[in-house]
Amino acid sequence: MDYQKLSLEKHFEWKGKLEVASRVKVNDKEALSLAYTPGVAAPCLEIERDPELSYELTRRHNVVAVITDGSAILGLGNIGPLAGMPVMEGKCVLFKEFANIDAIPILIDTQDTDELVATIKNIAPSFGGINLEDISAPRCFEVERRLKDLLDIPVFHDDQHGTAIVLSAALKNALKIVKKDIKTAKLVINGAGSAGIAIASFLLDLGAKDLTVCDRSGIIEDSDSFNSAQRELAKRTNPMKLRGGLKEAISGADVFIGVSAKGALSKQMVRSMADDAIVFAMANPSPEIEPSDALEAGARIVATGRSDLPNQINNVLAFPGIFRGALDVRAKDINGPMQIAASEALSALVADEQLSENNILPKAFDPEVVPTIAAAVAKAARDSGVARK
Amino acid sequence: MDYQKLSLEKHFEWKGKLEVASRVKVNDKEALSLAYTPGVAAPCLEIERDPELSYELTRRHNVVAVITDGSAILGLGNIGPLAGMPVMEGKCVLFKEFANIDAIPILIDTQDTDELVATIKNIAPSFGGINLEDISAPRCFEVERRLKDLLDIPVFHDDQHGTAIVLSAALKNALKIVKKDIKTAKLVINGAGSAGIAIASFLLDLGAKDLTVCDRSGIIEDSDSFNSAQRELAKRTNPMKLRGGLKEAISGADVFIGVSAKGALSKQMVRSMADDAIVFAMANPSPEIEPSDALEAGARIVATGRSDLPNQINNVLAFPGIFRGALDVRAKDINGPMQIAASEALSALVADEQLSENNILPKAFDPEVVPTIAAAVAKAARDSGVARK
Repeated sequence: MDYQKLSLEKHFEWKGKLEVASRVKVNDKEALSLAYTPGVAAPCLEIERDPELSYELTRRHNVVAVITDGSAILGLGNIGPLAGMPVMEGKCVLFKEFANIDAIPILIDTQDTDELVATIKNIAPSFGGINLEDISAPRCFEVERRLKDLLDIPVFHDDQHGTAIVLSAALKNALKIVKKDIKTAKLVINGAGSAGIAIASFLLDLGAKDLTVCDRSGIIEDSDSFNSAQRELAKRTNPMKLRGGLKEAISGADVFIGVSAKGALSKQMVRSMADDAIVFAMANPSPEIEPSDALEAGARIVATGRSDLPNQINNVLAFPGIFRGALDVRAKDINGPMQIAASEALSALVADEQLSENNILPKAFDPEVVPTIAAAVAKAARDSGVARK
Repeated sequence: MDYQKLSLEKHFEWKGKLEVASRVKVNDKEALSLAYTPGVAAPCLEIERDPELSYELTRRHNVVAVITDGSAILGLGNIGPLAGMPVMEGKCVLFKEFANIDAIPILIDTQDTDELVATIKNIAPSFGGINLEDISAPRCFEVERRLKDLLDIPVFHDDQHGTAIVLSAALKNALKIVKKDIKTAKLVINGAGSAGIAIASFLLDLGAKDLTVCDRSGIIEDSDSFNSAQRELAKRTNPMKLRGGLKEAISGADVFIGVSAKGALSKQMVRSMADDAIVFAMANPSPEIEPSDALEAGARIVATGRSDLPNQINNVLAFPGIFRGALDVRAKDINGPMQIAASEALSALVADEQLSENNILPKAFDPEVVPTIAAAVAKAARDSGVARK
């Protein structure tokens, strides 16, 4: 099916995928006097007295902003904030449909890091949480870090952490099938943008030791050819001090993780991997290698970002449940322990006896996914001291 | 009825007066592929090619932001953005219920004028229009003026212009009843904040000549006791060069317009007015003088902001229809001609034969109000060259 063509037609028909709904009928003077003036002065004064009551007296407890500056929309690049709106509205639809979260798309008309941070900080009281979306690397790292410092509501860059959480859950199950251990497996990530760097960090936190990260210009290293985030990561990766590119890095590897582009992984490279190789080719819309080619070249487990193939690694498996759990306990943050809890809950949703080469993750529409992750995230928030409720 | 107490109870029950609704069901892979990736890339690229298509392919054509910095919430003063949310949500409910506009409340956590302007400018691409709300004077004048210059979507400070539009419609009809002309009537405004200054400007534009404006410190004049907006207005008002306060200004006046506080107008002052005096005592929640007292002291027509009395001067009579009309033609602005058209359409909704001392304005829930004003505003936008459609 030509999704592009049909989607464009549908968007012209929909004329917007979201709308605002009133939870209060205002059809007479009395209703007006309660929902608005003069009665509304009372909840205002209560919130002034105790700001925490904004979670009881307004919708803040269930509202997440989906914010972009338009600098890295899907794989389309820097097409600007206005052109990013269909993605942001779509993400908000998923928040509502999967987790009953009221998500509001916000486009920011600046790509200056300081101004972006100031703008988001200034509008933050409107929301219970902030989902950063499609902001280019390496700016996205600083933007997220500074906002997390400034704000006492969750700030979460889904392209980084959502991807890392779903990927790591899939990897855990895949390694179980091939009976390998993340601590001893040789792992290669291709693509050192926001997702690649976040995945690397997350896997290191989970105990990975032999991890090598490549970008277009080769294996990342602490040199001028790489940005600051890549240089930092280089210090913690590539323990064998390999030189060269993906070809050199992947020889003998147990796991390939692609967040790069179509065609980046050749059959020959897969052939050079270790036995029982795991290939996660997540480039969108076309994977780094066709799954059939990867299997033919000897890979045992293949996953992609595509919904028409087995083992779809899709962020929608994570972000709705993560924010649901965070909002449910009014978490101040979505911290490391909450992210790890989400990943573990996601992998555990496929029971050992159901695990197979073509079944390493639950399906996106499995109704157990969101409540299971939400509960795990809420518990981790409480245990790590960031829950306010 | 104790609206404050009941409203607080209701707000605890509602837990937010708004929510987001998805206009698209996403319950299978195909729907996901159309509303989100991979299909959604197509509308994104179309908007990149032609930004005007953001009005066709996203909800922007129907979305208005209701924005405050919390500096002048109702008559409660500077209680901060978070405490202003119940009012903003309420306003958004009215936008939806009266005009089917999707309004989103945005709280801004700065009261620095430059930062406020920059923040609102930066988030503007998310919206089709901006309703500024409860921003204190004189900052509100500069904030609105600068945003109108920077943006090509309507920016409208309702506390100023909405009030002026409804008041002037009421005044036109009241003057008709008492057979006086705005050009020769002696008018006094008490209260020189955002509403008072906007009303004065609007009445001058409508042809008023003998207009005097008072503030707490007396009749405004071009001196250090008054802010820049008041000093500017002083140059265009008080043609008789009166000195003193409201007592001096109101002697012999045909019209009193109060946007001040309870008790500001005494019976004695009303007695000093001309025959067939018009008293618009709009202080909220309690008027400048009790209507029964004003009538007893000789006023012929009395109006207030209260919904339980005749002649309610309520902004809800104007802003839903004004934004409806502006959005319908994708207006770049809500300019003077559009505001005058709204005022004229509103006053014309009460036919001459229905006009009486207790019936100078349509009721808030009259279903004719919004479509009539919207049509007049849309026409004025086209005629004045600010419509894009």
